[in-house]
Amino acid sequence: MSTDVVSPAKLASELREHWSPRVIAEVDDAYVKVAKVEGSLAWHTHEGEDEFFYVLQGTLRIEMDERTVELHAGDAFVVPRGVRHNPVAERECLVMLIERKSTQHTGSTVTDKTRSIAEQLRPL
Amino acid sequence: MSTDVVSPAKLASELREHWSPRVIAEVDDAYVKVAKVEGSLAWHTHEGEDEFFYVLQGTLRIEMDERTVELHAGDAFVVPRGVRHNPVAERECLVMLIERKSTQHTGSTVTDKTRSIAEQLRPL
Repeated sequence: MSTDVVSPAKLASELREHWSPRVIAEVDDAYVKVAKVEGSLAWHTHEGEDEFFYVLQGTLRIEMDERTVELHAGDAFVVPRGVRHNPVAERECLVMLIERKSTQHTGSTVTDKTRSIAEQLRPL
Repeated sequence: MSTDVVSPAKLASELREHWSPRVIAEVDDAYVKVAKVEGSLAWHTHEGEDEFFYVLQGTLRIEMDERTVELHAGDAFVVPRGVRHNPVAERECLVMLIERKSTQHTGSTVTDKTRSIAEQLRPL
């Protein structure tokens, strides 16, 4: 985390691993994270936590049981707590996320893409 | 607040009043807000709350007692709790903010620019 001015898009573009969010800022009880994503993450649910997505570059599809939304660069969307969802990027996409500090990025689902909060807090 | 995909920059660009933040999303204990700003807000402090700024368009200067930072479009910065600051935009600038729900945007300072949380929650 930085006490300086940062460019979320630049930090996201420099990530080497897909679907491995990294914390770039702490705002009270929330973390702001960036991620580089491509392909499909995993269907999962955050039972008690909302998840805010902001697309920095590219296009992100968020599949939910009831509907699917598509976010282009500059678009934002909140997946409300309890809503099962699966983020998908047909091509590489850069995103900024806001989540409560306790939020696991794949919810209660654990896959080979799951990264611990400690891993997400590694310095960039 | 919307349950649909939104464009923070578009919502901010449509605001008619400077320095009057509007809530566009709720993420657990935090609000995501947008604002159209120009000129100087007011020197103020949030004693117990951090404030995250992300510049959507234009340039924002954040003056603090110890230093001044300048954010261009796509840049982000956190003013930590307890740090006295004054946001300044020489020209019209669009920003996205993340703040705990309880945060008053001018802290304990009240000016003619101060807007209540209820005013910030008016539908866009």
